[in-house]
Amino acid sequence: MSQNVLKLNADIISTASIVGQKEKQGPLSPYFDTCDQDGNDRFGQDTFERAEAEMQCRVATHAMARAGLIPQDIDMIFAGDLMNQCTGSAYGLCDLGIPFGGLYGACSTCAESLLLGSVMVTSRHAVHAMAVTSSHNAASERQFRFPLEYGGQRPPTAQWTVTGSGAFILGQNAPTPIAHIKSGMVGIPIDSGISDAANMGAAMAPAALSTLLSYLQSTHTSPHDYDLIVTGDLGYEGGRILQDLSLSQGVDISQVYNDCGMMIYSQNTQDTHCGGSGCGCSAVVLSGYLLPKIQRGEIRQMLFMATGALMSPDALKQGRSIIGIAHLICIEAPL
Amino acid sequence: MSQNVLKLNADIISTASIVGQKEKQGPLSPYFDTCDQDGNDRFGQDTFERAEAEMQCRVATHAMARAGLIPQDIDMIFAGDLMNQCTGSAYGLCDLGIPFGGLYGACSTCAESLLLGSVMVTSRHAVHAMAVTSSHNAASERQFRFPLEYGGQRPPTAQWTVTGSGAFILGQNAPTPIAHIKSGMVGIPIDSGISDAANMGAAMAPAALSTLLSYLQSTHTSPHDYDLIVTGDLGYEGGRILQDLSLSQGVDISQVYNDCGMMIYSQNTQDTHCGGSGCGCSAVVLSGYLLPKIQRGEIRQMLFMATGALMSPDALKQGRSIIGIAHLICIEAPL
Repeated sequence: MSQNVLKLNADIISTASIVGQKEKQGPLSPYFDTCDQDGNDRFGQDTFERAEAEMQCRVATHAMARAGLIPQDIDMIFAGDLMNQCTGSAYGLCDLGIPFGGLYGACSTCAESLLLGSVMVTSRHAVHAMAVTSSHNAASERQFRFPLEYGGQRPPTAQWTVTGSGAFILGQNAPTPIAHIKSGMVGIPIDSGISDAANMGAAMAPAALSTLLSYLQSTHTSPHDYDLIVTGDLGYEGGRILQDLSLSQGVDISQVYNDCGMMIYSQNTQDTHCGGSGCGCSAVVLSGYLLPKIQRGEIRQMLFMATGALMSPDALKQGRSIIGIAHLICIEAPL
Repeated sequence: MSQNVLKLNADIISTASIVGQKEKQGPLSPYFDTCDQDGNDRFGQDTFERAEAEMQCRVATHAMARAGLIPQDIDMIFAGDLMNQCTGSAYGLCDLGIPFGGLYGACSTCAESLLLGSVMVTSRHAVHAMAVTSSHNAASERQFRFPLEYGGQRPPTAQWTVTGSGAFILGQNAPTPIAHIKSGMVGIPIDSGISDAANMGAAMAPAALSTLLSYLQSTHTSPHDYDLIVTGDLGYEGGRILQDLSLSQGVDISQVYNDCGMMIYSQNTQDTHCGGSGCGCSAVVLSGYLLPKIQRGEIRQMLFMATGALMSPDALKQGRSIIGIAHLICIEAPL
């Protein structure tokens, strides 16, 4: 296997996040830019699917406004979500009139979009590139599992799909960048034989291990070189598995490890079992909570690995197991 | 709107195509590398979805073998298909163990994958990148419209989803490249208000117009500078609309225009109405039919625009119209 370190040179120059009600009630509540105002996670729309598209439109617009940019300044958007045919992204961003590259990496899409956007900026194919991802609990649950009204009982390993969206604008030589992306690594899809759609953490952890170990080895670094190694949404179950698997390979990440899915909800009071998941989970935690810490210098260097479960309900019915993937970017305080 | 010309410098150094029964009976039959041997388009698999994944695996493996490469030589695959969650790509390519970037651009994915692969090679982030796309008629029809067994009548504007897959390996400085990719343009999503899933040509034609006119204007070229301007799969209806729209803007493409969806089936004998469609359509026509013409010098320079309809059945039920997109690459005879 040949996972190469991509040398990148891109700044995150603006970002914006939006979340739903449950995320607003969680421990990271103060850090998100905006939230649903109507109490029903519809963001003024009449369906959950339209609500997800609306979130993408709002964060993209918000991130541009913060940077003093207009759509004509953005050379390319990379975007994705969990809905079939990635309609959250296409309908949400269509009106902006910006060149658009649709991605599908399940919950890994946030890192995939940042990585490809950074490649475009680093190689001067774009002056500004934008990365936008989202997920919506109600739209996701009815598509992948059951409609919420069905009231299906959730097993202990299940995660809670985050309602939220994050946008990131990448560029170079900005006067006051938020953070710098110095390198990245594209994930290898790994099928470990897990076929339980309510235990995606276990399905994704081996892919996170593969990418993490390849990156540490290629860069001759160890976990203590980073202030934080954060996965997208392995949740409590997958996060524990990743730590155990790493340790079994002689790499102890326990002192610097965290997971966006473990951070976004209160495990004691919010009844989300194994934590958050979805393309929106890592996007809003990175945008709202982690990037400001980097900008303030509280985190000097971190590895951000968004993990994805590349499967469909139909594939599981046909006897397939769940393929995991994890894309990595190394983010550091602005130069 | 700011559609920039991306300056690219990548060679297509290997390619492979595979098709189903109906495509094998069409006018391009002699040009495809392999076809289904069992007469049921299952490629030895027990479901159509697994068959699509199998096609991707076979063309990727075939393209590598032709170039004398092994999976470890490929730094990255960009892949996509029409199935929910792009499972054709993930399951088809997982076993190769190659870093994987999942894309969703509907039928535009072939150009999107070639464009991003070319960016990776041009910017030296990859020595070799691979682009793989596929579609399967039976898997697609039951997902987007009706299962084939239902026997729904197809309106005259409907297209026939191609069963097929194409793989392309990109690199630089190969001794005998097939073709050279010199530039590209990322498409802007355009919603023209078409909401008939059986008339995708009409929904995609305005996006093709936008990309084509932007490219011609930015490069100060006109249609007669190209031996061929070929769209991915507008089909007969969309192809006519694109020619009419172009002419109304003072650009006559009629002398050099063709469409992969119009080429792949016989309009007289194969009862496919408006022609072929699907991520596999443009991939196999480019791989099997057009690239050899470029390699032989019969086509010196062409614009390849794969067009995509970014919509889902659920979005249409919720009153959305179909967003079109068209990504362009300029391919020329090897330098």
